[in-house]
Amino acid sequence: MDYKFEITAKSKKTKARAGKVYTPHGVINTPAFMPIGTLGTVKAMTMRDLTELGAEIILGNTYHLYLRPGHELIKEAGGLHKFIGWDKPILTDSGGFQVFSLAHMRKVTDAGVEFTSHIDGAKHFFTPEKVLEVQTAFGSDIMMPLDECVGYPCKKKEAEEAVARTTRWARKSKVESRALNAGTLFGIVQGATFKDLRKRSAEEIAALDFPGYAIGGLSVGEPQAEMFEMLDIVTGILPDKAPRHLMGVGYASDILGAIKLGADLFDCVIPTRLARHGSFLTYEGKTSIRLNKLEKDFTPIDPECDCYACQNFTKAYIRHLFWAREITAMHLLTVHNLRFFMRMMAKVRQEIASGEF
Amino acid sequence: MDYKFEITAKSKKTKARAGKVYTPHGVINTPAFMPIGTLGTVKAMTMRDLTELGAEIILGNTYHLYLRPGHELIKEAGGLHKFIGWDKPILTDSGGFQVFSLAHMRKVTDAGVEFTSHIDGAKHFFTPEKVLEVQTAFGSDIMMPLDECVGYPCKKKEAEEAVARTTRWARKSKVESRALNAGTLFGIVQGATFKDLRKRSAEEIAALDFPGYAIGGLSVGEPQAEMFEMLDIVTGILPDKAPRHLMGVGYASDILGAIKLGADLFDCVIPTRLARHGSFLTYEGKTSIRLNKLEKDFTPIDPECDCYACQNFTKAYIRHLFWAREITAMHLLTVHNLRFFMRMMAKVRQEIASGEF
Repeated sequence: MDYKFEITAKSKKTKARAGKVYTPHGVINTPAFMPIGTLGTVKAMTMRDLTELGAEIILGNTYHLYLRPGHELIKEAGGLHKFIGWDKPILTDSGGFQVFSLAHMRKVTDAGVEFTSHIDGAKHFFTPEKVLEVQTAFGSDIMMPLDECVGYPCKKKEAEEAVARTTRWARKSKVESRALNAGTLFGIVQGATFKDLRKRSAEEIAALDFPGYAIGGLSVGEPQAEMFEMLDIVTGILPDKAPRHLMGVGYASDILGAIKLGADLFDCVIPTRLARHGSFLTYEGKTSIRLNKLEKDFTPIDPECDCYACQNFTKAYIRHLFWAREITAMHLLTVHNLRFFMRMMAKVRQEIASGEF
Repeated sequence: MDYKFEITAKSKKTKARAGKVYTPHGVINTPAFMPIGTLGTVKAMTMRDLTELGAEIILGNTYHLYLRPGHELIKEAGGLHKFIGWDKPILTDSGGFQVFSLAHMRKVTDAGVEFTSHIDGAKHFFTPEKVLEVQTAFGSDIMMPLDECVGYPCKKKEAEEAVARTTRWARKSKVESRALNAGTLFGIVQGATFKDLRKRSAEEIAALDFPGYAIGGLSVGEPQAEMFEMLDIVTGILPDKAPRHLMGVGYASDILGAIKLGADLFDCVIPTRLARHGSFLTYEGKTSIRLNKLEKDFTPIDPECDCYACQNFTKAYIRHLFWAREITAMHLLTVHNLRFFMRMMAKVRQEIASGEF
């Protein structure tokens, strides 16, 4: 199946839209949440679990998979889908954010970014060309060009340089992507929390006419209102006809707000990480399974949830497993939290279609 | 379903037999391997996984569940089956072995055994009556009476006292079990590695006419030949009509040898613990998934195995996950190792039935 995006419904009161992203490995109904499979597995899950939860796409981290097990091994295995046993779409990021947030040292020049691995301190060099070579070895359905991320708060000059570099790299990446005959390449908008920089970045990247766009550098510490303000500017500029991926976002309230502002794709470690740390999600927010008051709570996490954990086990049982440090506790909480996100997105899609959103 | 044991086939050349143990929660085909659910879950598994692997019974540890979450909470939850979401048979041990091997201090008198919890150092007291009260709160299908375990090697006088006490406690337990209207109570044979003590213990316990027997205190460090010698003596004395549970055994070769000597039920942490430590089992023994030579091994652990891990993933992938410390690696290896044991037992049952064993 060739890459294509179609909008199937639009909200009248907001910028929200529902649609379908077609990829070589299947269709993604949007707005969609992508569970994060950093190292070739969504933590504490199997591929079967993900399919049952309703995941239509997962995200892999280029930085992590490049370092371990390496893109050459993955290529030899027949690509990332085959290596990890997942036959649905995979989106991989550019590694730019991880180099920025995880690597012990980084040195950015126009050629690329030099960094030391957080695993063993070894030196590596990412260029726009290199990260596309890596993602092509993976065989990702959707790829990202190398971008430069900045922190929050950050000086305007620094943010401006990052925007300019991100655009230069995007241009190079487009050329390289054609040369490699790579998968679908999105453009990435940066600009920190500066309105004019967000506008400039969105305009520059949109001018390159990508089949989809990612919005980076948000949800890095700024208040939600500021994130929404930036997103609103960006989605006002990006063309309607392409999907928009708000990278690394987020909590349920962030996602619901961002959908209203026209974002289509989301990925975040929140549901899986919170689960491993003992918290479960409901529409009331997050709750720790450790709480004493749950000791004799013989009801499911959410009586209305259809996940394996809620259908079969009580809070008292999962709490016991968590205190006993059983892996099964992390598994059951991850199943629930991911299913909570999947059900939330399905509900949103339905509401957009029926005009109730 | 009332408790019953029937022998369906006997080997002509060995003491091996195949049979069925009927319990209130279903039938166990013997020889059977029981995965260990120490704390109310088999580690890194869900109940669904266990059912799919073919587990017909699991073992729960009275010592652990008594300490955490406590038998009273489990009773309040509606019993252990309901609390943990497992509707097939459960056998619980007496706690005797764990008090001996895990507790920080223990003081044995004829009344019972005082010990300190390995979790918080709190003092507890197990009596023959207490451990039956606890197991009755669990609602276990098969229960064990408090017994006294000794180490290896141990002095004969110590072993002799433990045998005498185990018999006295067995007698008390039988009376208490009737008073509590508890589930099926097995007798436990001790005697360390002394032939005359094994004989005496087997005779004394058999004289009490239990519906099933456990053989304890083996596989605690003695050579395999010595274990088999003891087992041979004991199964020569125990009545044919009752199942025999060789507690805590063991490796595949131990189990296969013990079946030839007339043992019917087995439980051991070997397959699950080895998995979490990165080893997989085949008929060739155990292999570490960490090995460098497996880095690019794009074949399953065992091409003939029908488990989820072997049907869907390669050694190279699981090795990668293990080095990346992903929980999913432990899960997949546990699935394979348990299925390996289940398939081995099914093959043995078939061979006994067809006379090929």
